[in-house]
Amino acid sequence: MTTLCKQPHSPALSNFNPSHSILPRTRFITVRCNHTPSQLSFEPSPVSTLIKSFAPATIANLGPGFDFLGCAVDGIGDTVTLRIDPMVHPGSLSISSIHSADIATSKKLSCDPRWNCAGIAGMAVMRMIGIRSVGLSMTLEKGLPLGSGLGSSAASAAAAAVAMNEIFGRPLSIRDLILAGLESEAKVSGHHADNIAPAIMGGFVLVRSYEPLDLMPLQFPAGTELFFVLVSPKFEAPTKKMRAVLPKEVGMKMHVANCSQAAALVAAVLQGDGRLLGSALSSDGIVEPSRIPLIPGMAAVKRAALEAGAFGCTISGAGPTAVAVTDNEEKGRVIGARMVKAFLEEGKLQASATIQRLDRVGARVVSSSSTS
Amino acid sequence: MTTLCKQPHSPALSNFNPSHSILPRTRFITVRCNHTPSQLSFEPSPVSTLIKSFAPATIANLGPGFDFLGCAVDGIGDTVTLRIDPMVHPGSLSISSIHSADIATSKKLSCDPRWNCAGIAGMAVMRMIGIRSVGLSMTLEKGLPLGSGLGSSAASAAAAAVAMNEIFGRPLSIRDLILAGLESEAKVSGHHADNIAPAIMGGFVLVRSYEPLDLMPLQFPAGTELFFVLVSPKFEAPTKKMRAVLPKEVGMKMHVANCSQAAALVAAVLQGDGRLLGSALSSDGIVEPSRIPLIPGMAAVKRAALEAGAFGCTISGAGPTAVAVTDNEEKGRVIGARMVKAFLEEGKLQASATIQRLDRVGARVVSSSSTS
Repeated sequence: MTTLCKQPHSPALSNFNPSHSILPRTRFITVRCNHTPSQLSFEPSPVSTLIKSFAPATIANLGPGFDFLGCAVDGIGDTVTLRIDPMVHPGSLSISSIHSADIATSKKLSCDPRWNCAGIAGMAVMRMIGIRSVGLSMTLEKGLPLGSGLGSSAASAAAAAVAMNEIFGRPLSIRDLILAGLESEAKVSGHHADNIAPAIMGGFVLVRSYEPLDLMPLQFPAGTELFFVLVSPKFEAPTKKMRAVLPKEVGMKMHVANCSQAAALVAAVLQGDGRLLGSALSSDGIVEPSRIPLIPGMAAVKRAALEAGAFGCTISGAGPTAVAVTDNEEKGRVIGARMVKAFLEEGKLQASATIQRLDRVGARVVSSSSTS
Repeated sequence: MTTLCKQPHSPALSNFNPSHSILPRTRFITVRCNHTPSQLSFEPSPVSTLIKSFAPATIANLGPGFDFLGCAVDGIGDTVTLRIDPMVHPGSLSISSIHSADIATSKKLSCDPRWNCAGIAGMAVMRMIGIRSVGLSMTLEKGLPLGSGLGSSAASAAAAAVAMNEIFGRPLSIRDLILAGLESEAKVSGHHADNIAPAIMGGFVLVRSYEPLDLMPLQFPAGTELFFVLVSPKFEAPTKKMRAVLPKEVGMKMHVANCSQAAALVAAVLQGDGRLLGSALSSDGIVEPSRIPLIPGMAAVKRAALEAGAFGCTISGAGPTAVAVTDNEEKGRVIGARMVKAFLEEGKLQASATIQRLDRVGARVVSSSSTS
């Protein structure tokens, strides 16, 4: 489904030929960016007229890595196309359209950049660079459904931040882009970097602290295969509700046990040991047990994944997607089919499976048109 | 100081020429091992008449690695000399003498192998191998003071377990030896493997679980220097008391923060990043803050270490030793001197410093006499 965002005097739209249905919006959606002192001593000029960027899905938490560990998943994600647009007020960003195969996702997304993840992150980058003389418009292609536990909001924010930085000649660092993405995450789903950091950096990322932001990329060895089996049921698991069930306090013994599993998980990533990674990912004794009863069939889905030979299985992000890991695509398909069956039989939920590799790149430019 | 353990009809003692003072004991100290079914289908014969073994000091906890992470320290430790002794009842182990430069340590140690770490571990190995036909005696040289937070009990147990296994031709695995050492640790200082595992294996070891025992050696890259500055004050910090002050529950936010620091610590070890290792080791927000007020001057000692350029500083084990890390021996000496000064000025405690490298080997045979 395509949401065509109504814009006053927006010639960009006249060239737009949506392939899906069109849902016009009436809200005024061009927003002036809040100019704070720029990090740059001069305002850079655009080096391209158009940038198309992609940012991958991400799996946050990873069992005992709750709230500080995440990784990127290849093949699925969101795409942003950003244009220099003379019809948009200088220093402003407008969203011209939003496309999604998922009607619910499309309906929920705002064309107002102040309330759209891609818009918030894009505007944050504009503010950081200090863009006052140029107006821009973007289209957003949502490859990820909202509220699936696959870092949908982070993917939009990451793609937008990278595109905005790229169109002005890449003046900001990766860290700045993550900070821009964090602004969006904080507004939409909470001040957590475990989706936005891997969405931008790729691979596995450990969030050590927020004040100051301290991120550690954890390199899974090149040449070692790692596949994620992602099984998403038709079920809503709002992050707020999933957070509300978490214990406020953790017993010391459980704290030590989960800490050691999180430490083992990090060692598994760095050593490229998929089997250990799965086993550690499966062994969260705090968050997963609190959340699993809220997703119908999830306990059976986990059992089914392990019985089918998965190295491990847990809830992706705050759910409802279940994630299992393996080292072989074909095995992944078998595991995925069993998990889908378990969701249907035990949870009475329709679900779909996809098998994807670890994404080692993060948000990237897909294509560009130069100004020269 | 040397404790000469009185033994009925022990010819081994007649050859013993202690270099220190002698404190005879009157307790009967030869103990028959409790024979449980052996893991071996036959009883192996000794391949040596004498084995001298050494096991290094260990640092448990390492800040946020509380109760699941430990490492071995080169240059200081305990030494066991184990002999085939025809005057000891077959299937039994006797302790003939205990030497220590520290009078308090010597006085506290029992010559009864049932109540001595080296004895308990040695007897456990005998039981595992199924030794019934041979009697043995051992001497113990304590290089580590008791209750210092440097894994004194584990070093004795590790040296004894390795010597016993070696004298019978090494029939047991490293894992078996750690299980034997754990028997001793459980009796003396609690069922924790974070000292005994690195004392036997060397390097850094992550304890993932106890049921079943699951240990992960974490290799600090070869060729990268890592020095520990160990500053031990004259102060008793009984493990029981140090455990009693720990919180029973941990807030979720603090749990996540400590987990991420423990994960960063493991990444630092595997990546050979001393600076990150120190920073993670310094950032425990749960155990160290509870224990630091119980060791006079410890907060000032930590500040002094960091001000002197240490990468990080925390309490070694349950204390009272403070451990700082650096990448250079000379820097280590400067850091150590500042820490000693801080213990004196702020804690009114005399202290001594030693600078040691990471031990990458663990418990080892120092010398042997063959039966052939």
